[in-house]
Amino acid sequence: MRAFLQIVSPLSPLGGKVFQNLRQVRQVAPNNIYLVQRFTTSPPRLRFVLNSFTKDPLEMTTTTLKGDLLDKVALDAMLRRRMFYTPSFEIYGGVSGLYDYGPPGCALQANIIDVWRKHFVLEEDMLEVDCTALTPHDVLKTSGHVDKFADWMCKDPKNGDIFRADHFVEAILESRLKGDKEARGQKVEEKEEDPKKKKKKSKAQAAVKLDDAVVKEYEEILARIDNYNGEELGELIKKYDLRNPATGVQPTPPMAFNLMFGTSIGPSSNIPGYLRPETAQGQFLNFAKLLDFNTGGMPFASASIGKAYRNEISPRAGLLRVREFLMAEIEHFVDPESHKKHHRFHEVEDVELVLLDRHTQLSGQTTVKKMAIGQAVKDGLVDNETLGYFLARIHLFLKKIGVDQSKIRFRQHMANEMAHYACDCWDAELLTSSGWIECVGCADRSAYDLSVHAKKTGAPLVVREALAEPKVTEQWEVEIEKKKFGPIYKKDGKAIEDALLATSQEELSKLAKELQENGKVVIDVPGVGDGKVEVSKDLLAIEWRKRSVNHREYTPNVIEPSFGIGRILYSLIEHTYWTRGTEGGDEARGVLSVPPIVAPTKVLVVPLSKTKDFAPFLRKVSQKLRSAGISSRIDDSTASIGKRYSRNDELGTPFGITLDFQTIKDGTITLRERDSTSQVRAEEDKVIAAIQSLVDGSKTWTDIEKELPKFEGQELEVR
Amino acid sequence: MRAFLQIVSPLSPLGGKVFQNLRQVRQVAPNNIYLVQRFTTSPPRLRFVLNSFTKDPLEMTTTTLKGDLLDKVALDAMLRRRMFYTPSFEIYGGVSGLYDYGPPGCALQANIIDVWRKHFVLEEDMLEVDCTALTPHDVLKTSGHVDKFADWMCKDPKNGDIFRADHFVEAILESRLKGDKEARGQKVEEKEEDPKKKKKKSKAQAAVKLDDAVVKEYEEILARIDNYNGEELGELIKKYDLRNPATGVQPTPPMAFNLMFGTSIGPSSNIPGYLRPETAQGQFLNFAKLLDFNTGGMPFASASIGKAYRNEISPRAGLLRVREFLMAEIEHFVDPESHKKHHRFHEVEDVELVLLDRHTQLSGQTTVKKMAIGQAVKDGLVDNETLGYFLARIHLFLKKIGVDQSKIRFRQHMANEMAHYACDCWDAELLTSSGWIECVGCADRSAYDLSVHAKKTGAPLVVREALAEPKVTEQWEVEIEKKKFGPIYKKDGKAIEDALLATSQEELSKLAKELQENGKVVIDVPGVGDGKVEVSKDLLAIEWRKRSVNHREYTPNVIEPSFGIGRILYSLIEHTYWTRGTEGGDEARGVLSVPPIVAPTKVLVVPLSKTKDFAPFLRKVSQKLRSAGISSRIDDSTASIGKRYSRNDELGTPFGITLDFQTIKDGTITLRERDSTSQVRAEEDKVIAAIQSLVDGSKTWTDIEKELPKFEGQELEVR
Repeated sequence: MRAFLQIVSPLSPLGGKVFQNLRQVRQVAPNNIYLVQRFTTSPPRLRFVLNSFTKDPLEMTTTTLKGDLLDKVALDAMLRRRMFYTPSFEIYGGVSGLYDYGPPGCALQANIIDVWRKHFVLEEDMLEVDCTALTPHDVLKTSGHVDKFADWMCKDPKNGDIFRADHFVEAILESRLKGDKEARGQKVEEKEEDPKKKKKKSKAQAAVKLDDAVVKEYEEILARIDNYNGEELGELIKKYDLRNPATGVQPTPPMAFNLMFGTSIGPSSNIPGYLRPETAQGQFLNFAKLLDFNTGGMPFASASIGKAYRNEISPRAGLLRVREFLMAEIEHFVDPESHKKHHRFHEVEDVELVLLDRHTQLSGQTTVKKMAIGQAVKDGLVDNETLGYFLARIHLFLKKIGVDQSKIRFRQHMANEMAHYACDCWDAELLTSSGWIECVGCADRSAYDLSVHAKKTGAPLVVREALAEPKVTEQWEVEIEKKKFGPIYKKDGKAIEDALLATSQEELSKLAKELQENGKVVIDVPGVGDGKVEVSKDLLAIEWRKRSVNHREYTPNVIEPSFGIGRILYSLIEHTYWTRGTEGGDEARGVLSVPPIVAPTKVLVVPLSKTKDFAPFLRKVSQKLRSAGISSRIDDSTASIGKRYSRNDELGTPFGITLDFQTIKDGTITLRERDSTSQVRAEEDKVIAAIQSLVDGSKTWTDIEKELPKFEGQELEVR
Repeated sequence: MRAFLQIVSPLSPLGGKVFQNLRQVRQVAPNNIYLVQRFTTSPPRLRFVLNSFTKDPLEMTTTTLKGDLLDKVALDAMLRRRMFYTPSFEIYGGVSGLYDYGPPGCALQANIIDVWRKHFVLEEDMLEVDCTALTPHDVLKTSGHVDKFADWMCKDPKNGDIFRADHFVEAILESRLKGDKEARGQKVEEKEEDPKKKKKKSKAQAAVKLDDAVVKEYEEILARIDNYNGEELGELIKKYDLRNPATGVQPTPPMAFNLMFGTSIGPSSNIPGYLRPETAQGQFLNFAKLLDFNTGGMPFASASIGKAYRNEISPRAGLLRVREFLMAEIEHFVDPESHKKHHRFHEVEDVELVLLDRHTQLSGQTTVKKMAIGQAVKDGLVDNETLGYFLARIHLFLKKIGVDQSKIRFRQHMANEMAHYACDCWDAELLTSSGWIECVGCADRSAYDLSVHAKKTGAPLVVREALAEPKVTEQWEVEIEKKKFGPIYKKDGKAIEDALLATSQEELSKLAKELQENGKVVIDVPGVGDGKVEVSKDLLAIEWRKRSVNHREYTPNVIEPSFGIGRILYSLIEHTYWTRGTEGGDEARGVLSVPPIVAPTKVLVVPLSKTKDFAPFLRKVSQKLRSAGISSRIDDSTASIGKRYSRNDELGTPFGITLDFQTIKDGTITLRERDSTSQVRAEEDKVIAAIQSLVDGSKTWTDIEKELPKFEGQELEVR
């Protein structure tokens, strides 16, 4: 996979600075080979192509919304030019894995979050909380993150390059497979024009033919690459002699590298802590209060939207693997004895999903099944209704914000791949130019988190439920005369007590008999005397007792849908981007066909010219749009109307209003739709009402075209 | 000032745990004296009263919205019980200065942010960005935060207690003044019932009479307590022999304690970094891109909403001083040569503000002036229109979300108090039970930040503006024959060149004459030979030249309104809270009269009883409210309607809909307003339309009472 890092730097003032920064950039992503190319675009920019030696996105056949081949370079240039997002601290050389969102990216993100909140939190009365990112060590020690939240890292002993072990194995095997294809004379797409690069590349991918059996082995390894642990990855590196192409040496055996950012809290640095790697823990710790807030009702869900932090070993691929990111997470708490039924499952059971299960992947395949979620749960492919309900709701959410339906699949995690807390997990993956990307995880965390925190702190993270009728249980019970125990057994008293209390029901039944018959029992207490201790009947009683229980106490299980908003946002951009050809031979113009509901700006308002006659109309239209809660921007620059519209097509603005000389005469305005570029003309209020119904989704453009008169007058000018 | 930390912990299961945690809590806030009280409320709770020895909030006469004395203990209990916010990690003993927002707090926060975004970002077309909190060291070194973003900390050498030096001085002087009052027989309110506490207190505040002159000195020091630096605070401690009451010893001299949380970024911990202490730096670093996005137009503003982090020495007073908090910041970039005029200033010039200026404070006074912002700018009290415009807009924002107009003042910073980057600053302060609290800062950061970052990185953080007509300048210019310089002067060449280029215009005029007359000049170059160097006319020319300049380049100044959302949220709660007396002698019931626009939930829907006949009406009403974008909750519990309403009065829910048996007959429903408890009755659609106009602010309850028939039927039941 190749990562592009473009450093915008007007050549004159920055010049040497950027080259100085190269060293810093290398530190950040030391496993990449650097090639510096200079482009003569205006304004002049330097472009660093960070080329790691894995599969090349240019060679993948990702298509745009209209089925054309995606020009990733053009898309990246557009996203940068229009400031959707940009590397953070770029004038300081940047820090890999950190990005800032500019105005359109920020608005797109806010709108996705707004839809998310309505689709999940409001629709299902979830309890939203906002917890701190700073987290003390003890919490994350208990949750297992301090010990287990790590990736496998290995290092080139010669030049110090650092790799994520699974990425390294994947990269080398893929390059060998590619070399094999070349050697067999099969077509391997090559699009490089830089001879230096070609040379490096061919060094990494010597065109060596492999045995058919080896090819099959490699392919099977790649299909389950996520399923290897560190030791296994180390074995693969040795077995297949995988070497760093830059130095020709094997890296060190993989070591666990914890992904949390550490810090310390307080004036004397007295509380070690971390930045949270997920928002979930805050929700678990508040469980008892949330249950109370919900007046004890079960099941219920909490939700949280906030930043999380992971110190990735080698961040790459833009927004897809970053160190600080926005998450939206739901923790749905459910009674495990309810078989995880869900009372609204029937509403979604016919929703069709594309599924890639665990067994298929373990057999080295990637064949998917398309089926209704109802059937998938019935067949046991998806474990239970609650998990199935959320998979379907996730699918509907992604559909609502405009994700391409043909580029979603749900992939089940394999055993080694799962997070330490999960007992089952399905990812919603979206297809992008970087392959299938995990954008939403839907894990069954069972009772893991609540149990470990309750055990550690003694807090009652349980549900206490009144039973419809008391449950009567009978069992052997031990009663110890503590006052007499001490004087007789002295320091061993406690050990003997513990041994008695730990005795199984079966054993107790035997001991009761023994006690009755002999007036004493002999029990095993390792470490006390010879390991056998005699206890007489005046020191204890063992009796068969009946107990009536009115309440049931249980630790809820948790189903956790967890959304990576940045990944969803980036995938959505790729899915909705396309280019409109021009007849005049100009450059193809980009269009971002995001649905109105998430579009950064809903309406562009353009007066035909800068004449002052338009001013009162502009004010009135803007004011009315604002009152209707519709975000709009005015473009009163001197560019042609066509140019102004096309600038906003790139930003995803779905509608455009033009004020022309007819407006001054009769108060009518035109309304243009982004994707079709067709227009209607009507009075101001009718147009604004039309926009409102388009934005809230109650009408489509086809409806509006039927209702309002078509307008063709400006067509030539708009083109 | 006293901080309350209440640890909710059902007594039975946690018992000893909480007491164990006491040690941890002490570590966090070691300057507090702990008193443990046990209350017998149900469910049983333990309450830790953290009593530091400063002014007691109970003794302040903060009033509620209705003018009654604020019962802070009851309010805190309500906020905790209804989960507005809660100490983070409480089951682990908590970490001071970290709080989580529960569902109502989270919704209130989201609504305040929503109003903020509309009032500032959308209204003024600001460019919103979302930058990372992780920030590399170099950025904050340049901005001055690494060296200067610190508070003064001192330590008790005997027991290790850590104090914020200004808080320490303030506390001791205030307690002495109180002792003086007691000694003079003046009334000092005492509301303590705990004899142990009284004892400790009286130890700290021995009733010693002070000289009148000393009283005056203390009072003047307290009035400008924010104006002392570390050295001065140290001198005060020595001069007045200020001792820690817990040990009777003087603390160490104040040392600077940097407030940033450190971390390191990357797999080999290779990039030292911090969590940002403000969102501003990300906006400054993106200045060139934002200017470009704005197609070069000036002035413009960027804005950002996000978390910031400050490692406070001794966090206290709940949400008012925390270590992780939500900020909303605006950076308004303006041409310094425009005299910081603002084109919309006329829209706000009549807005009246309460001002407390720098001079008044330095003279030891706190007398405020109420005046129109137009007048304040005219009088030079507020430096310029842009600063004045934002002060007025801040005031209007606070008014819109429901802050009490009589509890706002704008206080100007004194010189030593200002942040290192500011050249002027006014705080919007809100009056709470903890005194006047800085909730919004409005600083003029001049060109400080852009200049230092540009200097460090070489990035052109400037505006380049075409001049209407070229500016012609004439001046002496030096031209050096570099090729000849080297061979003649060898290693001294560079020093001589630099000396020539650094020569003033006046000197150059003399040298030109000398050159013409003697064919050579003699110049001073310290460190070269005897400090005099001869340069002949074949090596240089000095000429009077004319230059025409078409562009002007300047570094913009920045006006920065910066909002602490948590502080605003807490102050708003205090300002809108009141209690409704009851006739039956029950406990007074809390009401939170927040405006509908920020209320966590807009409508409570209550069916008269649990009978199934209401189900279809409930579904329909909920669906219609959701379509209208109005958040609602159903309460179909078995509690009385009055109880259900009063539970939601506490949560600030402004409207209530009741479905009763009449509803089943004729489809009419009742609508109740929170503050007046008066009700109207009408058909469903009319009631929903009424709610919509109340929520969007187009109508008041008085309007609705005139439009829809009054309903008194349930009155008895609701009371």
